[in-house]
Amino acid sequence: MKPRMSKTNDKKPALVLLSGGLDSATVLAMAIDQGFEPYCMSFRYGQGHAIELEASQRVAKAHGVKHHKVVDIDLRAFGGSALTDDIEVPKGRDAHEMTDGIPVTYVPARNTIFLSYALAWSEVLGAFDIFIGVNAVDYSGYPDCRPEFIQAFETMANLATAVAVEGKGHFTVHAPLLNLTKAEIIVEGNRLGVDYGLTHSCYDPVGELACGECDSCILRRQGFADAGVNDPTQYA
Amino acid sequence: MKPRMSKTNDKKPALVLLSGGLDSATVLAMAIDQGFEPYCMSFRYGQGHAIELEASQRVAKAHGVKHHKVVDIDLRAFGGSALTDDIEVPKGRDAHEMTDGIPVTYVPARNTIFLSYALAWSEVLGAFDIFIGVNAVDYSGYPDCRPEFIQAFETMANLATAVAVEGKGHFTVHAPLLNLTKAEIIVEGNRLGVDYGLTHSCYDPVGELACGECDSCILRRQGFADAGVNDPTQYA
Repeated sequence: MKPRMSKTNDKKPALVLLSGGLDSATVLAMAIDQGFEPYCMSFRYGQGHAIELEASQRVAKAHGVKHHKVVDIDLRAFGGSALTDDIEVPKGRDAHEMTDGIPVTYVPARNTIFLSYALAWSEVLGAFDIFIGVNAVDYSGYPDCRPEFIQAFETMANLATAVAVEGKGHFTVHAPLLNLTKAEIIVEGNRLGVDYGLTHSCYDPVGELACGECDSCILRRQGFADAGVNDPTQYA
Repeated sequence: MKPRMSKTNDKKPALVLLSGGLDSATVLAMAIDQGFEPYCMSFRYGQGHAIELEASQRVAKAHGVKHHKVVDIDLRAFGGSALTDDIEVPKGRDAHEMTDGIPVTYVPARNTIFLSYALAWSEVLGAFDIFIGVNAVDYSGYPDCRPEFIQAFETMANLATAVAVEGKGHFTVHAPLLNLTKAEIIVEGNRLGVDYGLTHSCYDPVGELACGECDSCILRRQGFADAGVNDPTQYA
């Protein structure tokens, strides 16, 4: 099945945060399906899994994205996370216990920073729709993946920006995966033609391969199994 | 008069956004005066007035700041402002008319991005107090210098972060200059020993000198005159 691609220029612009992972690839397809012209934004933030950025470029290309900005930010400067620091990424049983508290893979204020950049570019573009692939079901440990955070950011965005204050529009932060299980996300993406073989979710890849053992790999594997969709991921 | 300096290590940490301008230098002195141990954060964001960063370092040194982080961010990537783009900074009468609307020197979502970084570092430090020198009186044209924005950011911050959600503390965004005139700010800073000769406010400096004509210079000059305090600024 061919992926949904963006075709015309008369569409409303939307900012799509694209990590190269399974979730944001699905969100991109959903934004396009809803008739938006996607402006994708990815971040090079000192993450160990920079391989995600290549995935984001493959995904953007597959969906005919014309505008894709990769922004360099240095979250390593702050530390405090297994994803940007030298803290070991938990595997197996430890990884699976992530929902008991805040996972060590949590990056302080990451989504706040990502959305702030998205807001800046949106304001310049005159785009009032921002899409983010946060999910409160499988990632309940991350405070900035909850609906109350998304709502609070949206409220703030409409007070922070000239275009909103001048009444030129109202920012909406779309988080269409918020209440979906991983399996439901995969079913929806599959319907929209997302090639999940292009995406990358692993926190701790072995060369080009996914480790298969970090919490992200475990959720992804289980999601494909539950969805009854073939998992194209190459595991180590 | 000697500036108030941070002396002991038993103090509560606070994050202070320090631009090197008159306002944030005053805020730093106020935070120290309130008994906080200041962790200062400045940004290199592609601004034409990078000379501000040197001022921030001078100010931090004068106040005995032990922790000062300069973060590189690229707001030029988005454009849309006279401060980061090639739009001309308005002078004279045009500059003075800034309060009629959003000034062209407005940088999209700048304070949102700055505060997001401050939040990330605060979370890692376990600091729950963030100081920012926004002012709603002289800068009424900037949407992200208004009390409703600061309040909305604070609300969002307490939903975005693990430390707040886990109940380890509650973030407060202090904006002590919010309702002060420039003259009142200068009087307060003067009382606390701020050496305004170290600070830099000009949007369009001529070498080491302030232009004396941009909106920032006009406000600063008038502020010293109204405060009855000697203006140490060297104008071109």
